[in-house]
Amino acid sequence: MSELDYFFQPKSIAIIGASDNLRFGYSTTMYLLNSEFKTYAVNPKKKELFGQPTYNNIKDIPDEIELALILVRNEFVLEAVKDCVEKRVKGIIIESAGFAETGVDKYIKIQEEIVKLSKESNVRIIGPNCVGLTNFNNQFTTTEPSFERILKGGISVIAQSGVLGNVFLDWASSQKIGFSKVITLGNKIDIDEVDMLEYLDKDPDTKIITLYLEGTKRGKELFATLKSMSKPIIILKNGRSELGSNAVRSHTASLAGNDRIYDAIFRQSPGIFRVNNFYEMFNIAQVFSTQPLPKGKNIAVITGSGSLGILACDQIEKYGMSLARLSEESIQKVSSIIPNWVSINGTIDLGPSLFQTFPNSIETIIKDENVDCVLFIYSVPRWPLEKLKLPVSPLLRRLKKNASKNNKPCIVCAFGSRWVYDYLLKSTSIFGIPLMRRIKHAIKAFKLMYEYQKIKK
Amino acid sequence: MSELDYFFQPKSIAIIGASDNLRFGYSTTMYLLNSEFKTYAVNPKKKELFGQPTYNNIKDIPDEIELALILVRNEFVLEAVKDCVEKRVKGIIIESAGFAETGVDKYIKIQEEIVKLSKESNVRIIGPNCVGLTNFNNQFTTTEPSFERILKGGISVIAQSGVLGNVFLDWASSQKIGFSKVITLGNKIDIDEVDMLEYLDKDPDTKIITLYLEGTKRGKELFATLKSMSKPIIILKNGRSELGSNAVRSHTASLAGNDRIYDAIFRQSPGIFRVNNFYEMFNIAQVFSTQPLPKGKNIAVITGSGSLGILACDQIEKYGMSLARLSEESIQKVSSIIPNWVSINGTIDLGPSLFQTFPNSIETIIKDENVDCVLFIYSVPRWPLEKLKLPVSPLLRRLKKNASKNNKPCIVCAFGSRWVYDYLLKSTSIFGIPLMRRIKHAIKAFKLMYEYQKIKK
Repeated sequence: MSELDYFFQPKSIAIIGASDNLRFGYSTTMYLLNSEFKTYAVNPKKKELFGQPTYNNIKDIPDEIELALILVRNEFVLEAVKDCVEKRVKGIIIESAGFAETGVDKYIKIQEEIVKLSKESNVRIIGPNCVGLTNFNNQFTTTEPSFERILKGGISVIAQSGVLGNVFLDWASSQKIGFSKVITLGNKIDIDEVDMLEYLDKDPDTKIITLYLEGTKRGKELFATLKSMSKPIIILKNGRSELGSNAVRSHTASLAGNDRIYDAIFRQSPGIFRVNNFYEMFNIAQVFSTQPLPKGKNIAVITGSGSLGILACDQIEKYGMSLARLSEESIQKVSSIIPNWVSINGTIDLGPSLFQTFPNSIETIIKDENVDCVLFIYSVPRWPLEKLKLPVSPLLRRLKKNASKNNKPCIVCAFGSRWVYDYLLKSTSIFGIPLMRRIKHAIKAFKLMYEYQKIKK
Repeated sequence: MSELDYFFQPKSIAIIGASDNLRFGYSTTMYLLNSEFKTYAVNPKKKELFGQPTYNNIKDIPDEIELALILVRNEFVLEAVKDCVEKRVKGIIIESAGFAETGVDKYIKIQEEIVKLSKESNVRIIGPNCVGLTNFNNQFTTTEPSFERILKGGISVIAQSGVLGNVFLDWASSQKIGFSKVITLGNKIDIDEVDMLEYLDKDPDTKIITLYLEGTKRGKELFATLKSMSKPIIILKNGRSELGSNAVRSHTASLAGNDRIYDAIFRQSPGIFRVNNFYEMFNIAQVFSTQPLPKGKNIAVITGSGSLGILACDQIEKYGMSLARLSEESIQKVSSIIPNWVSINGTIDLGPSLFQTFPNSIETIIKDENVDCVLFIYSVPRWPLEKLKLPVSPLLRRLKKNASKNNKPCIVCAFGSRWVYDYLLKSTSIFGIPLMRRIKHAIKAFKLMYEYQKIKK
């Protein structure tokens, strides 16, 4: 048991500002009150909510409370925190916004009062100005994810605010990317990325951590923690520019700091990788969470499109990886089953013969000792898939089977319409193969996995 | 009438290798034989196809033929071209693959023979190793687009092979991006990008041209043509790396050439813009084809998400654009209707108040003389949209109305699940507002539009 477990698996919860109005907090209230988590609603204006009695004040609840969730307007938050301290809760999540990030004196002062309270007591606080957290392992949440749609997996997310806690989670779910824990930190008056990195490093359900950072108030501690992590971390740091760093201040009252210092810190921390955007972050995290580390940097590129093969070559060179050259023996074997004008000396461009030749050649290709990673670029348009009922699933099953047998990572990149993408996703999600739209992200994922493997060695 | 019109609106067509087997060529044959285009099927093994009589040879057709489409296997192509020359067709599209790109002597020689034939006669040839072309204005096609799904618009595409002619078109259609003409050039034994750039520059239905290039055999002519174009061109040049440039050779037998020379040529040609990938290419082309050019470089960023506002600031600075600062008058006006803790001095982050405050403030924001471009970053998750039935359409209608009235370009970036994206797309596609997932593409589009406006001035 870790010290902060009460945030992720609380024995009892009070929702201050619980509501059945269709506004912020509605669905969290409804979900928790109807869940197996022991939840109490605090709302002096209501007698009951979703069939459960409410309390005027958290102090009136005839039970011990581990975790308090505060949803009331900014003016009422300080009073609510005081009540929580008196009630001796262990943790508080303040979702309400309108504090230091506004730049308004009055609200900055309220935030400072809350900080003081937290320091004088033992209570730990997440927020304010956040959407709390979600634990996909036990389905505890203080936000609004849909557990029917979002998959459980090995990725944990440390984020700043709603856009990651809600919006990108929604996106990732339609890509069948799976999560363990998602925490939004907001203005970070107490618990921050350092605490959460330490927590998640010990969490058995977390394989890889993605960290979205706008700034930190504990540079030294962050640096030390990053250096000591046993799991890979993918970091997206916004506010690189002067303009952006001003915007950070009015978003979560953080200081973005000098981007070059951050960059240097990340570079000096083994296993810490910086990415450029949310899509890259989740695509790469998915590869880390589902694929074995490659033993070398040779990537076999199997494709039906010459243009996309070329694009892959450009990216392989850009990231300092290598295009796998098949052994003479493999070339002989594969040559015997493909049309004589198909070239397999560089990228393996099976062209229109893909559906006939892929199933018979994939075993030889993956087994080849010159191959460390497998990239399958799929670009058959909708028409033949739909009309000829070309069976994609057997191809992908064979890809997965041979990749697993040889313990080599594989990724599928798919191009074309959503129909085609979804057609593939049905199989790749079953077989646990990462599917993405961007070749660049796939090559970068192999690159970072290769770097990580060298560090681990 | 331009010289090459018979490729895009042929008076009569012969399909050599017409087929009703479910393979390459099936749907083109079916489509053209059932269309209003006067089409004759050539296939010595069949008596009729889709209820129409076939001919043993193109020479047997009792009518003049303007355009011949060749779909037979590589070994039979030379003979078919000879027949076409004797029949005195004006243009030939050879879709068959298996020529110089294979690197096999036998097939290189066949290609050379075809080149010789074309030079000795007046016939013009597109291909081989391509999927021909599509004219969305009259719905003439030699490939397999679905005219029900793909929209008519101002973008024309010059491409190398199938992945753009089919696959990305499919993708773009699900984004509601509209096209005029799409041409795939394959091995370019006769007609190449220079011919097509000249043709499209005069085409009244084409507003912007996107060119996917793997290499050129006519560097000087390409340079001269690019310099003289009256329309903006967006170029994606693959094969930047050594590895990639080797791959180009085995794809379409082109020489990728030194990337730095290409880059210099593009930079010296006003109105020619280089992009890095297919998605960027089509997203930016859509902005050019639907939005007015901005008069200056000040971008107003309206958002409900602080994190995404920061991301936009980073991109604005990276691309040398400016964040619009509202005039004192506008700030006063907008301040009077938004919560007092919302900051509008940098990005206009309306936070959760978006749905209440956007409709009343958008007119003031767009009208402001300090605003040249409008970026609306939409990040409301699915839940409130679905449950609270938040009306997005009136917001977007007002955005469009005011942008049009003030003749300023606008773009919407949407984040989250596909459900949310499609929800927005329904309205943006009606109002002609570009919708995309990447803030980077939006800012780069404004940047290129701004550059183009300076050139035009």
